[in-house]
Amino acid sequence: MRDARFDVVGIGNAIVDIIGHCDEAFLVKIAATKGSMRLVDAGEIKKIYASMGPAVEISGGSVANTIAGVASFGGRAAFIGTVANDEFGKIFTHDIRSIGVTFNVPPIPDAAPTSRSLILVTPDGERTMHTFLGISTSLGETQLDLELIRDSAILYLEGYLFDEPEAKRSFRAALQTAKDAGREVALSLSDGFCVDRHRAEFLDLIRSGVDILFANEHEVKSLYQTESFELAAESASDDAKLAVLTRSGKGSIILSEGRSITISPEPVSDVVDTTGAGDLYAAGFLFGYVKGMGLEISGRLASLAASEIISHIGARPTIPLGEFARQRGVIS
Amino acid sequence: MRDARFDVVGIGNAIVDIIGHCDEAFLVKIAATKGSMRLVDAGEIKKIYASMGPAVEISGGSVANTIAGVASFGGRAAFIGTVANDEFGKIFTHDIRSIGVTFNVPPIPDAAPTSRSLILVTPDGERTMHTFLGISTSLGETQLDLELIRDSAILYLEGYLFDEPEAKRSFRAALQTAKDAGREVALSLSDGFCVDRHRAEFLDLIRSGVDILFANEHEVKSLYQTESFELAAESASDDAKLAVLTRSGKGSIILSEGRSITISPEPVSDVVDTTGAGDLYAAGFLFGYVKGMGLEISGRLASLAASEIISHIGARPTIPLGEFARQRGVIS
Repeated sequence: MRDARFDVVGIGNAIVDIIGHCDEAFLVKIAATKGSMRLVDAGEIKKIYASMGPAVEISGGSVANTIAGVASFGGRAAFIGTVANDEFGKIFTHDIRSIGVTFNVPPIPDAAPTSRSLILVTPDGERTMHTFLGISTSLGETQLDLELIRDSAILYLEGYLFDEPEAKRSFRAALQTAKDAGREVALSLSDGFCVDRHRAEFLDLIRSGVDILFANEHEVKSLYQTESFELAAESASDDAKLAVLTRSGKGSIILSEGRSITISPEPVSDVVDTTGAGDLYAAGFLFGYVKGMGLEISGRLASLAASEIISHIGARPTIPLGEFARQRGVIS
Repeated sequence: MRDARFDVVGIGNAIVDIIGHCDEAFLVKIAATKGSMRLVDAGEIKKIYASMGPAVEISGGSVANTIAGVASFGGRAAFIGTVANDEFGKIFTHDIRSIGVTFNVPPIPDAAPTSRSLILVTPDGERTMHTFLGISTSLGETQLDLELIRDSAILYLEGYLFDEPEAKRSFRAALQTAKDAGREVALSLSDGFCVDRHRAEFLDLIRSGVDILFANEHEVKSLYQTESFELAAESASDDAKLAVLTRSGKGSIILSEGRSITISPEPVSDVVDTTGAGDLYAAGFLFGYVKGMGLEISGRLASLAASEIISHIGARPTIPLGEFARQRGVIS
C-alpha cells in the first residue's frame, strides 16, 4: 500500500451555523427537543430565524468541524461536501481552506442555497439544532474525488448524510473505495434521532466495514436499542474494531479488541456552547490515532479539543490545537 | 414639543463584520495601520479575505452597534441605514430587529452588496478594520424617515458617513430635521483618519448644532490638530454642549458647561476583542442621558457596556445590558 497523502478525508454536510442564545421557554414555544438536530425546510427555518434573537454566523457541519480540528492539530486533512455559489458557500469555503484543509469540490450553482443550521444555545450551554440541508442533499457520486479517498489514511463519514438518499449512495461508494485501497473507515453516528431513522442500515454498514465508530451514549444506546450503556458498548465493540464512546461530563470510553480505556473529561471552568463537542473530540482522537500516538494519548487529545470548543461560541477551534496540546504537555 | 416615541434614532452604515484573528506580522504584510479603519473596494476586500484565517460573521456598524446597545439596555431605539437584498442584508436586518430596534428601511435590490468589514483582531485584543461600503454609499435622503427623526429624543450620527457624498447630504438633512423639531443631536467622530479627511466639515457641523460629541483621544486630538489631549478636550467643550471623550484603559471624561467628570474604566479580566468598545460606551451613555440619570450614572453605564463588549468577539452585546447594569448595582 502506498503512503497516504492525507491523514484524514471527511465526507459530510457543508454547513454554516447561525448561533443564537435562547431560554428554555423558547425551545418549548417552538416545540424543539433540547439537544437534538431536526431537519427543517426553507419555510420553517425562515420562521424560526425570524423568531429567534441576534445570532452569529460561523462555519460548521459535524464532519467539517472534525476535519478543521484535525488540520488545527497539524494533520493533513481534506473535506468533501457541497456548497452553493452564494455568500454562505463562500464563507464555508474560506473558513475550511484557511485553517489548512484541502477542499476542492466546485460550488453547485442555482440549485439550492448552501446548507445552514439554526443553533439555539440555552443558558446551560446545551445546543439545539434546526438544519436546512439545501444544496447538501446534492452530494452525489460525481462530487466524490475517489483518488483523494484512496490517498487518505482514514475516511471519516458523517451519519447525518444518511438522511439524504443521494448522499447515502455516495457514502457507500466512498466506503468501498477506501476499503479497496486498504484504508480505514471511521463513522460518526451524529444524532440519536438520525440513528432511529436508519438503524438497520447503520448496523449493516458498521458490520460491513467500519473500523472506528464514534457515538455518544444516547446514540449507541439507540443503535442497539438498549437502556444499558454497558450492553450497548459491548455490542459496539463486537461490531467495530474500535468503538469510541463519549458520555459528556462523564468522559469517554475507548473499546479496542477486548481492551477498555476510560478517558477523563478535561475540566472546563465555563461551558459556553457545547456545539461541536463531539466533532472536536473525534478530531483529537483521529489525529492522535493516525499519527500512531496510541489510544490513551489519542483520547487525551480528544478531550482537550472538546474542552477548547465548548469554552466559546461555535464549533471551530479559535486557537491552533497542536500548540494547545503542546502547552498542556499532551504532545511534545 | 411633543413626547418622543423613540429615545434614540441612529443613522449609520449597516455592516456585517467578518472577524478573524491574526498576528502582528500579518498586519505588516497587508500594510495595515493597526487600530484604524480603511475603506477598500470589492477587489481589495476579496484579496484580504482570501489571505486571512477562519472568521465569524456578526452584525456590526458603529452607530448600529450603539443603537443595538441602547435597545439592550431597554431603550426605545431606531436605526436608519441601507442594506441590499442579499444574505448579509438579511443577517443585519434580523440581528438589529431581534434585539428590539425599529429598522424599516427597505433593502435596495441589485445595486451593490450589503456592506461588510473585515476585522483583524491581534493577540492584544486590538482590532484593525477594512471596510467595503457597498450599498451603504446609497444612503440617500429618500431613505430618511423624517417623521422618525422628529419623533426621537436624540439623533445619533456616524462620522464614517462623511466618507460618502450622498450620505453626507442625508446627514445634514437629518440634523436639520432634528434641530427644527427641538431634538438633540449626537455625533461620533468614528476614526482618526476619517477626521483627517473631513476636519473642516466636521468642525463646521459640530459648531452648527451638535449637542453631544463622542470621540476618543486620537480623534479629538486630530480634530483640533494638537498633541495635547487637555487642549483638545477644552476646544471640544467649547464647541459642543457635551463632550464625551474616551481614553481606552485610562477611562473617559465627560465635559459639560465647565464641569469635568472623570469615569474610571470597568475592570475586564481578559480583553478578547476591542471591536465596538467606543460604540457600546456611547450606548450606555446615551441610554443613561436620555433617561435623565445624570452624567455620572450615564458614564458608569457607558463603561459597563464597553467592558461587556470587549470581553468577547464581536460588537453586539451577548447579554441584556439592562439586566447586567442592575446586577452590577448601577441602576435599580
